[in-house]
Parts: sequence; C-alpha cells; structure tokens
Amino acid sequence: MANEVESTPNSYPMNGGIGCHSYVKNSHIQRALLHAAKDVITEAIVEKVDITNPWFNSSRTLRVADFGCSVGPNTFVVVQNIIEALELLYRSKRHNPEIPEFHVFFNDHVHNDFNTLFRSLPFSHRYFAAGVPGSFHDRLFPKSTLHIIHSSYALHWLSQVPTQLADRNSPAWNKGRIHGLGASSKEVREAFSAQFSKDLQAFLNARALELVGGGLMLLLVSGLPNEFHSSQTNSAIVLDLLGSCLIDMAKMGIISEDNVDSFNLSIYRTCPGELEAFIEKNGHFKIEKMEELINPVRWDPPDFQMLASHLRATFEGALEEHFGNEIMDELFERFTNKIGENSHIIYDQQYIKETEIFVSLKHRVTDYEV
Amino acid sequence: MANEVESTPNSYPMNGGIGCHSYVKNSHIQRALLHAAKDVITEAIVEKVDITNPWFNSSRTLRVADFGCSVGPNTFVVVQNIIEALELLYRSKRHNPEIPEFHVFFNDHVHNDFNTLFRSLPFSHRYFAAGVPGSFHDRLFPKSTLHIIHSSYALHWLSQVPTQLADRNSPAWNKGRIHGLGASSKEVREAFSAQFSKDLQAFLNARALELVGGGLMLLLVSGLPNEFHSSQTNSAIVLDLLGSCLIDMAKMGIISEDNVDSFNLSIYRTCPGELEAFIEKNGHFKIEKMEELINPVRWDPPDFQMLASHLRATFEGALEEHFGNEIMDELFERFTNKIGENSHIIYDQQYIKETEIFVSLKHRVTDYEV
Repeated sequence: MANEVESTPNSYPMNGGIGCHSYVKNSHIQRALLHAAKDVITEAIVEKVDITNPWFNSSRTLRVADFGCSVGPNTFVVVQNIIEALELLYRSKRHNPEIPEFHVFFNDHVHNDFNTLFRSLPFSHRYFAAGVPGSFHDRLFPKSTLHIIHSSYALHWLSQVPTQLADRNSPAWNKGRIHGLGASSKEVREAFSAQFSKDLQAFLNARALELVGGGLMLLLVSGLPNEFHSSQTNSAIVLDLLGSCLIDMAKMGIISEDNVDSFNLSIYRTCPGELEAFIEKNGHFKIEKMEELINPVRWDPPDFQMLASHLRATFEGALEEHFGNEIMDELFERFTNKIGENSHIIYDQQYIKETEIFVSLKHRVTDYEV
Repeated sequence: MANEVESTPNSYPMNGGIGCHSYVKNSHIQRALLHAAKDVITEAIVEKVDITNPWFNSSRTLRVADFGCSVGPNTFVVVQNIIEALELLYRSKRHNPEIPEFHVFFNDHVHNDFNTLFRSLPFSHRYFAAGVPGSFHDRLFPKSTLHIIHSSYALHWLSQVPTQLADRNSPAWNKGRIHGLGASSKEVREAFSAQFSKDLQAFLNARALELVGGGLMLLLVSGLPNEFHSSQTNSAIVLDLLGSCLIDMAKMGIISEDNVDSFNLSIYRTCPGELEAFIEKNGHFKIEKMEELINPVRWDPPDFQMLASHLRATFEGALEEHFGNEIMDELFERFTNKIGENSHIIYDQQYIKETEIFVSLKHRVTDYEV
C-alpha cells in the first residue's frame, strides 16, 4: 500500500487552485470530450451491469471510483453521469426499486490539489464523497470493493519517462525533442510503448483485485487511430513547438541545451490495436466494447491563448520541476506566440487525427463468490 | 448528503500547511493526550469487538473512520493504534488468522487542509486511506459501513455559536467575553449546553446509521469534572486573557468594542454526567465505559510561546474571519506577553482541573442482520 511509484519524480499533478493557470479554469477541452462520452458510458452501464449478480444484488452500497480525477470539475460531470445511469438501471429492472446508496471515490496523485477538489464538490451531490490520494499504478482499495471503475484522460500519463531516454549513450536518447509522440526513432517509440505496457499492466492488475466480480471498468484513453503515425497529429506538432521554444531559450543562454535534451514529458498515445493487445495479454478483463470517440470541439475555435493555457495547466508541473519556476512565464509567452504563428499547421484538418478510445471492460471471474 | 452545516460560518479548520503557525507544528498537546488514551482504546477494541458477529466475521474489509481528524499527524497515531488493536484481536481469537484489509477514512470540514494531511500519510501505512470532507454533524457514509468510529478532541467544537449570543437584546448577549466556558451568566451557559446537546444528537444520529451492528465508537471529549465550574479552569483563564487582548485593542481603536462583544468561539466543555445524559437521551448507543483521562504533560513545561502557538493554530481561523487577517500578528504577540505575565495563575495547580472524557459506545441493535 506504500506508494512506490508516488515517490518517483514523474507524478506531476495538474495545476491546482482556481487561478488563471489552473486546471479548473483550463480543462474545457477535456470536458467537451466527456460530454461526447456520456452516451456510451450510460449505454455500457445499462446494458452490461447485471444487478441480479450477488455483488450488486446484496450490496446496499455501490462504490464508484474515478482514477486520475484531477481537481475537477470534469470528474463531477462523469460521476453524476455514472450515478444517473445506475439509478436508471435499478429503476428499470426492479418492480419495487430499492436504489443502493452510492459511495464515490475521487483518486489522483498525493500532490493533486484535493483541497480545491473538495471545495468544489457540487452542493447537491446525491452520493457520499471521499478522496483517495496515490498513484493508480498501485493498489488503492481493499479487495472486491468497487462496483464501477472509471478513468478518463489519465492513462496516457506514464509512471515515468522510460529510463533509456535519460542515457546519453542509449540509442533512445531523445536529443532536441521533449516528448515521444511521433518519434522518428524506433528506439524512442519502443521505449515509450514498453513503459505504457508496463504501467497499464500495473493499473489493470490493481483494478482486477479491487473490482467486484461482474463489475464494470470504463476507460477513456487518449490515443491515435491504428497505423497512424503520431508525428502527423497536432499534439506532436504543438509539443514540438513547445520544445522549439525551449531550444530558442537554450540558444539565448537562458537554459542549457543539455537540460533540454534530458527533458521528456512522460506521456504516450496508444492506438486501439495496441491497447486491445495489452488488455488481452493482461487477461483479467473481457473487452465488452471498444470504440473511437470524436470530440466535436477539440480544436475549434482556434483560440491560441486557450490552447496555450490548456497546455500550461497540464504540463507546467513537469516543466517547472526540470527547468525551474522562473522561466515559466517567458516560456509560455513564447509558446503562445508560436502557436499563433503556426496556426495554419496546427489547425490543418489533415493533422486532426487524434482519437479518444473508449473501452468498457468486465471482470473475468469464474464465479460470483461474494 | 448536502452539507447544510458546512455552509454556516462556524466551520473553522485548524491552521493548515506546515509553517510555524500550523496545526501540524502545534498539536503536541493533543498528541500527549492521545498517547495517554492508547491503552484504553486498545482495551476497548480487544474486549468489546465481537469478531464472530456477522458484520465482522463476513467482512473482508474493516472500515475505520476518524471524525475531526484535522491535518495530522495525531490522526495517524490514533489510527495506527486502532489497526494494531484489531490485528491483535484477530490474531488472538482465531486459530487460522485471516486478518481483513483495512480501509481508513479521515474526516474533517471541507476547508480542512487535506493536501497537507495526504502528503504526510505515513509511508508504510498498512491500510488503504481516504479523506472525507464534510461536517460530522451530517451524514458522511453509507448505511452500516463503518466498523470502528473514532473522534478525539473534536466534539467540543459546536456547529455554531448559539444564536442568542448574537442578539444584543438577549439575556445571553456575552458582552466583554469571547467564549462560553465558565460563563457567570446562566443564560449563556444554558445556550451553549443546548447547542452542544443538539450537535451531539446530530452526530450520534448520523453515526448510528453509519456504524455496523455491534460496531464500536470511541470518543475522547474535552470536558470538565462533574460539578466543576469552568471559570476555574486554565482554558477559561487563558481565553479570558485572549479576550482581554482584544478589549485592549478595542480601547486603542484598532478594532471596535462592538466587534469584540459580538464575537464568540464556538466551543463547549461538557462534563461526564451531562455527556452520559445526552447519550442516554439519544438512545442509539450503549455506554460500555466512561472514564476521565489525565494528560500527564498537558501544561508542563510552562512554555508561553508553545501555549500561544497552540491556541493560534486552533483559533486563528475563527478570529481571522471576524476581525480580519491584519490584526493577527499583533493580537498573538500581545497574547503571548499576557500569558507570560500571568503564568502564576495559568499554571497554578488548583486550576488544572480539565479532563478528557473517554467513552466507548456500542451500537444498540436488536439483531445482527447483515
């Protein structure tokens, strides 16, 4: 239960508080996605949860957990959606509906801003709320206690940058780049994919123990279409622009070039084929459904400031840890300008090929022993 | 589940963070008390928890909650003690011990500093941890889910100052004083006692629903011996000194006298007889044991700065809300000096008559229906 992964330097929370650079104020891109996911989540719960299963039938409390909840408000939107779907299911399937009470757990890294999360809990929430600090690559709940598990926009965060990338003598040394999305180097791509596989296995193994028999896991994973090279995505283009701002600042002597070369964001975008293979390899879960979601407002309207603010709220923690706080304002000012100058590339429809992969998974159990 | 009480202005958390005025750095007085309570808590668990009771016997998870946990580290000491007592019980009573997993819930007001609490969780804790934001005068958990409930040093905080005290025309208008401990006015005393009764009933009613049949509730309540007038206690004397600093500042025109008259701390000290009567009146719990604990290091050594810092960490939130942040440093500088000048009274043994009342309560249930 000690959070080994937690102690690595790669557990950067989203920006806390409610200020202009906070995640709370800069997460509407993710919110649009969640609205797009609402129907598939409702459908999965109504169709796939069997409330006559003893784990549901005998329980007067249903436990729902959101892994990687961040500071809100998106997590509240998802949870409300899940609760409403469960209520709908209980009302529709029982003559004399006795709806269980709901216990909802909001999980994120121990350095997440739980104070802001708790203070922004919707006043009229119809569930009991709790916060759970710790890395979702570790166990966080007792055995067989969760009925619905959800995670969105979180599994693309790795527990660490692959170690090879920090080794100047490795073929995976990522010189001049700050991320592994669309890496031209085979070694960099493989190192990131292996790290994602390892982290996903840790996540699935922990959740397999925590989920009740017949329980449902709903994942939204930032990804790419199959056979699609991620250098063609605007995420890769935008992060290359952010990297080029750091290189500019290195050339001006503000930071060192070595410091730029040794920095990498610990994120990875999988594709449906790879994700399916990794889940099958794990073996604890049966894939009920996998589909690609389209986020209708993802890059529209092309508001440079909004995009820069969104990325600042997301990545500032990692950048600050490596480069220090004092260069952040200058870095993001340069970045905002670069986005403006390159908007014709960023918003070119041919590059908007990212996808969010929705997967609903059911616990593979041989019996329903409670 | 909406926290009605939470929205009142009287939910002041202890000072957050880890700075010099924080509760984390200024709660060793409470910690000494908890060490003194260790043995009675262990004894209560080992003697009074029946692990053959179906709520314990069939559960693979035992849930423990600390109500009014504040920011630590004291809550971790208590919880560790409870877990160790439960482990001892399971090991001693079973031939083939299968110790359940533990899920521990740390509760305090939504404005408590949960970030600091979570970041200071002991690295090697042998339980799954969660934070629960909200007033313990409301429901905070689903029905019949907690096995052990604990609360120490918290129930003397009322949900609000009795409304009569804010009414200039009421006989309970508490002119010239900032608290109700040892009030010479019968009306003030009765108003505080009635508020304590109301809050305690709300607490017990909520916990009666949340505790499993046969579950144990362990309370440490700041109190006074029976028939003991609280004006003779050093708490009352010390708070009178704090009040006199405010009056001095009013005379100097720094704050208004009206502002001092309208301010009251929402705390109350009960006595064993009154506490027993209120619990009996509630009816949900059987008192297994009630005793007065002696805190060996409570006012010793007489370190003025420590005492002032302790009270600042505890009461600054309430004072700041009423008088504004800008007078806090001056107020507590004056207060520290006054404690020094009056140490012969504060540390006079005849006044050290406060007590901590330990009560162990068992859920009154007619059957053990799980």
